[in-house]
Amino acid sequence: MSDLPSFVTVHEEGPREGFQFESRPIPTAEKIRFVEALAETGLRQIDCVSYVNVTRVPGMRDAEEVARTIRKKPGVRYTGLWLNARGLERALQLPLDLVGAIRITASETFSVKNTGMTIEQTIAEQRRWLSMYRENRIPVEWGYVMTAFGCNFEGEVPLSQVVRMVDDLLALAGEAGVSLKGIYLADTVGHGTPISIEQRIGAVRERWPDLRIGLHLHDTRGTGIANAYAALRLGVDQFDSSCAGLGGCPFAGHKGAAGNVCTEDLVYMCHEMGIATGVDLALLIECAEMAEQIVGHALPGKVMRSGRGALRKLH
Amino acid sequence: MSDLPSFVTVHEEGPREGFQFESRPIPTAEKIRFVEALAETGLRQIDCVSYVNVTRVPGMRDAEEVARTIRKKPGVRYTGLWLNARGLERALQLPLDLVGAIRITASETFSVKNTGMTIEQTIAEQRRWLSMYRENRIPVEWGYVMTAFGCNFEGEVPLSQVVRMVDDLLALAGEAGVSLKGIYLADTVGHGTPISIEQRIGAVRERWPDLRIGLHLHDTRGTGIANAYAALRLGVDQFDSSCAGLGGCPFAGHKGAAGNVCTEDLVYMCHEMGIATGVDLALLIECAEMAEQIVGHALPGKVMRSGRGALRKLH
Repeated sequence: MSDLPSFVTVHEEGPREGFQFESRPIPTAEKIRFVEALAETGLRQIDCVSYVNVTRVPGMRDAEEVARTIRKKPGVRYTGLWLNARGLERALQLPLDLVGAIRITASETFSVKNTGMTIEQTIAEQRRWLSMYRENRIPVEWGYVMTAFGCNFEGEVPLSQVVRMVDDLLALAGEAGVSLKGIYLADTVGHGTPISIEQRIGAVRERWPDLRIGLHLHDTRGTGIANAYAALRLGVDQFDSSCAGLGGCPFAGHKGAAGNVCTEDLVYMCHEMGIATGVDLALLIECAEMAEQIVGHALPGKVMRSGRGALRKLH
Repeated sequence: MSDLPSFVTVHEEGPREGFQFESRPIPTAEKIRFVEALAETGLRQIDCVSYVNVTRVPGMRDAEEVARTIRKKPGVRYTGLWLNARGLERALQLPLDLVGAIRITASETFSVKNTGMTIEQTIAEQRRWLSMYRENRIPVEWGYVMTAFGCNFEGEVPLSQVVRMVDDLLALAGEAGVSLKGIYLADTVGHGTPISIEQRIGAVRERWPDLRIGLHLHDTRGTGIANAYAALRLGVDQFDSSCAGLGGCPFAGHKGAAGNVCTEDLVYMCHEMGIATGVDLALLIECAEMAEQIVGHALPGKVMRSGRGALRKLH
C-alpha cells in the first residue's frame, strides 16, 4: 500500500524559530528551560539559536548566553544557525554542536530578494562555505533546496529546476570530497501539496534512487501534515519541525506568517500509524504547553489541545 | 498513482457549527449575512441552524428568525439539523430545505453517553425516523456512521464494527425502500489518521465496491487535511467542512474542542491538486475573514492568513 518508514527522525527547530520570530522579549532563562525540556523528550537534535544581526533580530541578542548556559544531555545535538562568516565566527566560540550545510534556493527571484544573490552566485558562495567548513573541521551533513515547491514571486518551481538544484548540491559536495547524508527539499513558504511532494520526490528518486531525502515543511496553507503524510508514504524518514508550531503565529496578527509543521502533531500521526520516532509524546506535549506559556499567546499545534485522548492508544 | 476525483462536493457546516458553539451571542443579522455570503461562493449546501433546546444551546435561540430571513440563492440548499421529533416539527414550519439522514454511532459507549441510547436502541430509533420522513415526504440522502474512527472512551473502533454499522444503515434504508446517496464515515472526535482512513474505506469498499462514501472529519489532532488527502487518493469526493474551521476554537480557551476540517483549506488543496470544487476560493476566504470578525476571535483556518499567494496559481 505504501513504503511507510519504521522510524522517523525529527530535527526540532522550535527554539530558534520561536525565539527569533516573537516580537515580545523572551527571558533568557525561559529559552534555556525550554531547550532543556525538549532534550528530555527523546529528540536528538534541537536547533537552539541563530547567530544573526541582533539589531535586525533582537530576539537573538542573548544567543551567546543561551548557548553557554544550556545543560547538555548526552546523545542530544544542540545546533545553531549562521548565515554569514561573522555568524560562523560567533558559533566557533560557543559550546554548541557545529553542523555544516549547503543551501541553494530554487527560485531565482526568491534567492535574489532573500539573500541578495542569484543562484549562480549562491553556488559560488557554497564553495566558499565548504572551504570554511573544511578549515574548521565542521562536518557537512545535508544539502538544502530552498523554495523547492514554489514561492510567492514565481509560483510553482519547475520539477526540472528542483532536479538541477539537487544536481548542483551533489556536485558541490563531490568537488569538496564531502559525502552528504542526503538532500532536504524545503517548502520554505508553504507552497507544497501532497501531489507536488510526490512529484518532486519522484523526480529526485528517478535520477538518484538511493539518495536520502528530508523535508522542511511550512504549514502556511494548512497542507503541512498532509504533505508529511505524502512523503511518509514514499519512505521519507527525516523531517524538520517545530514544537507547538513555534516560529509562525497566525493568531497574533502576524498576517501571512506560518511556521514549520508542528512537531507533536507530526509525532502523534507517526506513532498512530505505527512509525516510531524515539520521542515521548506526553513530554513533548508538556513542552508545547510550556512554549505557549513562554511566548504568552496561543500557538498553532493541535494535539496539545486535544487532551489525554491523544495518548490513549500509546499507553 | 492514485484515484483522485475530478470534482469534490463540500457540504458547508460552518454557520450551524459556529453559531451553536460560540459562547458570546452573535447578532442574528450577522448570522444571516454570513450564510448569504457563503451562498455566493459556489457552495451548494449550507447547514445554517440547528433546532435544538435553546436553554442548552442559547446560540440557536434565533434559529427560526435566521431560517426565515435568509435570502435564498437558487441552486443552493440551506439545511438545518434536528435531533428529535420536536426539532423536526420546528423545521417543518420553516422555509429551509429538509434533508433526512439516518445515523448510528459505532462506539457503544459514546452512543450511550452522547445520545442516551445503545446501538440497538439507535437502530430502532432510525426506523422511526425513516417513518417520519416518509410521512412528511422528506428525502433521506445519506447514512452516517458516527465515531467511525474511534472515540475517547473506547479508543479505536474495530474495522468489523464499522462494516457492521454500514450494513445496518443499508439494511434500514432497504427496509424503508430508501435509496441512500451513500454512507458518511464520521470522525466525530478526530481520531482518524491517514492509515485508518485508508483501512476503513478499504474495508467498506471490499464489501460494497460501488457504495459512495463521504467523510466528516474533525481536526482535533491536526490530521484533518492529511485524512482528507488519504480519502481523495481513494476517490472519495464528498466532504463536510466548516468555513474558517468554525465550530471549534482551540484558541479561546475551549480546551480540547476542535471543529471540522476547514473548508477553504480543503478547497485550496483540492484546487492546487487539479480537483474542481465549484467554489470560488477568493470569495470563500472573504467569508472566513468575515467569520473571524463575527465571532470576534481567531479561527483555525490557515489559507485565509496566507494572503493572495494562495490564489496565485489560480488566476
